[in-house]
Amino acid sequence: VARAVEVPELVQQARAGRPRAVGRLVSLVEDGHPALREVMAGLAPYTGQAQVVGVTGAPGVGKSTIVAGLVRALRGQGLRVGVLCVDPSSPVTGGALLGDRVHLQAHALDPGVFVRSMATRGQLGGLAWSTPQALRILDAAAFDVILVETAGVGRAEVEVASLADTTVVVVAGEVADGVQAAAAGVLEVGDVYVVNRADTPGAEEALRELRAMLRAGGRPGPGAWRPPVIRAVAVQGEGVDRIARALRDHELWSGESGQLAERRARRAAREIEVIVSRIRRARSGVVADHPLLAGFAEEVVAGRMDPYLAARRLMEAMRREDPEG
Amino acid sequence: VARAVEVPELVQQARAGRPRAVGRLVSLVEDGHPALREVMAGLAPYTGQAQVVGVTGAPGVGKSTIVAGLVRALRGQGLRVGVLCVDPSSPVTGGALLGDRVHLQAHALDPGVFVRSMATRGQLGGLAWSTPQALRILDAAAFDVILVETAGVGRAEVEVASLADTTVVVVAGEVADGVQAAAAGVLEVGDVYVVNRADTPGAEEALRELRAMLRAGGRPGPGAWRPPVIRAVAVQGEGVDRIARALRDHELWSGESGQLAERRARRAAREIEVIVSRIRRARSGVVADHPLLAGFAEEVVAGRMDPYLAARRLMEAMRREDPEG
Repeated sequence: VARAVEVPELVQQARAGRPRAVGRLVSLVEDGHPALREVMAGLAPYTGQAQVVGVTGAPGVGKSTIVAGLVRALRGQGLRVGVLCVDPSSPVTGGALLGDRVHLQAHALDPGVFVRSMATRGQLGGLAWSTPQALRILDAAAFDVILVETAGVGRAEVEVASLADTTVVVVAGEVADGVQAAAAGVLEVGDVYVVNRADTPGAEEALRELRAMLRAGGRPGPGAWRPPVIRAVAVQGEGVDRIARALRDHELWSGESGQLAERRARRAAREIEVIVSRIRRARSGVVADHPLLAGFAEEVVAGRMDPYLAARRLMEAMRREDPEG
Repeated sequence: VARAVEVPELVQQARAGRPRAVGRLVSLVEDGHPALREVMAGLAPYTGQAQVVGVTGAPGVGKSTIVAGLVRALRGQGLRVGVLCVDPSSPVTGGALLGDRVHLQAHALDPGVFVRSMATRGQLGGLAWSTPQALRILDAAAFDVILVETAGVGRAEVEVASLADTTVVVVAGEVADGVQAAAAGVLEVGDVYVVNRADTPGAEEALRELRAMLRAGGRPGPGAWRPPVIRAVAVQGEGVDRIARALRDHELWSGESGQLAERRARRAAREIEVIVSRIRRARSGVVADHPLLAGFAEEVVAGRMDPYLAARRLMEAMRREDPEG
């Protein structure tokens, strides 16, 4: 595969929204393929159009059902929708996904919907590296909205969700031990809150608790965004339109207030940071195999060189070999 | 402290074996002080004389008592002895050490003995970085033998012990659940084995088991080193002279066989490697604060740059600022 990737062609086809090309580019991300540099250079001018929506919450709260409802609602408005499911613990590869996600099977033949589960396969940098790259691909492929669903509320997943343009936090209506415990770590990052399974006993309590917690965060200033708390029974489609409307409202508000530009700049900065540290980490693995190392080590043993000088010389040599960095 | 370090003077005094200077240089290692580069450059020509002996084994087997016995024995032969205790989990700083180590108090006023416990304080690279640096200091300070005692048998500790010129593995005579379990992870690395508390019931069993395991490793070829298994009752000084003799035998054998040169080259190579990755890791932390990052992030958001190009430009800029690497 490595040399057979015809980047300009794939980029061309992905821009035209061809699902196979989009899927192949996302696979390059999963593989950490060296052609990604060229891919990203080719895609850059076509990015920045999609609204990136993070959907997060503890496992089992019904995120997938809500995502499926949103796909239906947004599709009904004629929007092209991408869905990226990221699960740091899953060894599953992308291909098998649509079959697993019964809720989304209705869209299997719809070219306006692209669904992909992404495995990070222990990639250096993990989700923080792979997710923005995959988003970039879907963005350039002219999807209007990209829903990023995270599997749980681990540190990496919350980071991914919080770097979206709009972040939806889902809690379940029947949480016995309180919203706080159920959504520890995510509650600060929401732009839209959803209490799913709002028809179960306890849901009113969960709603009240959530609203109290948001109020406890302090009164928003004039012109600030007030995160709505939406009741949903996603399996019956209840509340989904309200969520879709809230996403649209937040997009408008964040565009006007400057929040969107700010978040995207933060996301890009983080993306650059992760790429730099990935390049560095990939290189450190190579030191042990470098042909100059043995000779330098002997110089150090003989006392003709100190280890810092040897390290510096080695780094200089590696730079000369790969000056592009 | 940072700017007040007078490196050439400290190096001079350490070479003359002045304990205070040696101690201060080891503190620079604990602090990850930038002056270390200069220190190591100054010391390099004077290294390579000491025999570095790793002493390892599970906690509680009596390593400290054996080390104390060896100090006495080696001192009796007129040798200058350095002791470096490394404990990755200990937050203890060096100064307090001699007081703790009751076995070594007899040498508190002897300038021919230097004892130091080293804390790594969460240093990048940990033991693998700090231990060789400290060894280098003691080596240049003209100690004939340096005993490196590790606190336990963790991965980092076993690595440190195995990179010594000679490695002593200690097991306790009374191990109830077998030598294998008690010394899991260390058994392969020994050049000299010690069954301590050989006067307890079960010690014969431990000895037999240990010998069987070493035999199971295969018959050594002609001229190969056959690791001796030594009975000791270290609190009574029994067996210590035999250990000291085994250390001397191994030193002679490894010098003649080429093993010593090979191990030292491996140790130096590992040392260089760890310094390189430490320099790199220290730098990656800085990316997030780099003044160019925000501007590059905006270019990426605007689609005028892709994140790989931004990462590369950032790395180039950082290199120009710190071309010494």
